[in-house]
Amino acid sequence: MEKHHKYRGLFITFEGAEGSGKSTQIELLQGYLKQKQKDVVIVREPGGVAISEKIRAILLDVNHTRMSDQCEMLLYMAARAQLVSEVLLPALSDDKIVLCDRYIDSTLAYQGYGNGIDLQSITRVGAFATQSLRPDLTIVFDLPVRTGLGRIEGRKDRIEQRNVDYHQRVREGYLTLARREPDRIKVIQVNTSREEIHARVRQLTDALFE
Amino acid sequence: MEKHHKYRGLFITFEGAEGSGKSTQIELLQGYLKQKQKDVVIVREPGGVAISEKIRAILLDVNHTRMSDQCEMLLYMAARAQLVSEVLLPALSDDKIVLCDRYIDSTLAYQGYGNGIDLQSITRVGAFATQSLRPDLTIVFDLPVRTGLGRIEGRKDRIEQRNVDYHQRVREGYLTLARREPDRIKVIQVNTSREEIHARVRQLTDALFE
Repeated sequence: MEKHHKYRGLFITFEGAEGSGKSTQIELLQGYLKQKQKDVVIVREPGGVAISEKIRAILLDVNHTRMSDQCEMLLYMAARAQLVSEVLLPALSDDKIVLCDRYIDSTLAYQGYGNGIDLQSITRVGAFATQSLRPDLTIVFDLPVRTGLGRIEGRKDRIEQRNVDYHQRVREGYLTLARREPDRIKVIQVNTSREEIHARVRQLTDALFE
Repeated sequence: MEKHHKYRGLFITFEGAEGSGKSTQIELLQGYLKQKQKDVVIVREPGGVAISEKIRAILLDVNHTRMSDQCEMLLYMAARAQLVSEVLLPALSDDKIVLCDRYIDSTLAYQGYGNGIDLQSITRVGAFATQSLRPDLTIVFDLPVRTGLGRIEGRKDRIEQRNVDYHQRVREGYLTLARREPDRIKVIQVNTSREEIHARVRQLTDALFE
């Protein structure tokens, strides 16, 4: 396997809409890796550390209806920058496997394809925020927009409250990103049992050890 | 006068260390401009609007000792982005005079010259955050580092608590920026009475109306 960074550990990110079963699959993978005696760290974005959780609270507050697209993108990047320096880089230097619930592809999908911010700006600011740390593997859980939104009805944050067209652009964005970087980004269709999906996640992860 | 943006109003920013008398001079200038029947808006950075004030609280919290340089820079930019879109652009479109206590040059001086973040990254992220809005005039209040720090003894925030070397680099940074953009950035030495300093500020401002 070709590493995407200079650290000893492995960095796997998980992407897709809320309601796609992302969190469940991360937990299942964690159990699998622990059985294999691997040292696993799980984090979520935005958040994961104290400063980033405070930023998360500002981002997802449904009262912040006037937040500009630029501010939103920069807050996601600020939260990510703190997570990278405080958790990800130390863990990866220490030979750990890091499972990250959302990362830079979320910003490309939601703020880029969704809000219309140009992708080059996101990539540039992202390289600065992450100190150029890229995932070894990114798994996108893909499902029809209405199915995903239906699953989280009644508990939506500021981003999730956006309309179906927005979420459709986000979904298409993820699929476009996967076509552009097929070696790093793998798409799993969320239309089978969680055990079958977990088997596919295991298979993609095992390939990193070969 | 050559405008630095496409809006009808005037955009003046004020820079320099805490303890340089910046806030007092902004108030004096506001009084002068109101006498001249000008419509004036005063804002401060980081902050100025609800979302940005929440970001300010994270930035200046003395408990956030582990905040990374990248996170710090991005938070300043996020607060600025919101201020630009919510207040500065509407006010400038509406022919107002905006007096802003700190702006992009603060990030260049503190996070760039002070923390060592490369200036090109700051300039690029800054252009994105501000939608390329540049000040018509920037006044830097310059004074020796120990004089400034002495004036705010006992009420320092997270940034102000940094050591004298840091603040020395910030001061030199401001002076370097002024040498590079002499038409936009004017330096006033803070070693005379506040009336004499105000007279110089008035003179620089009046030149914008000619």
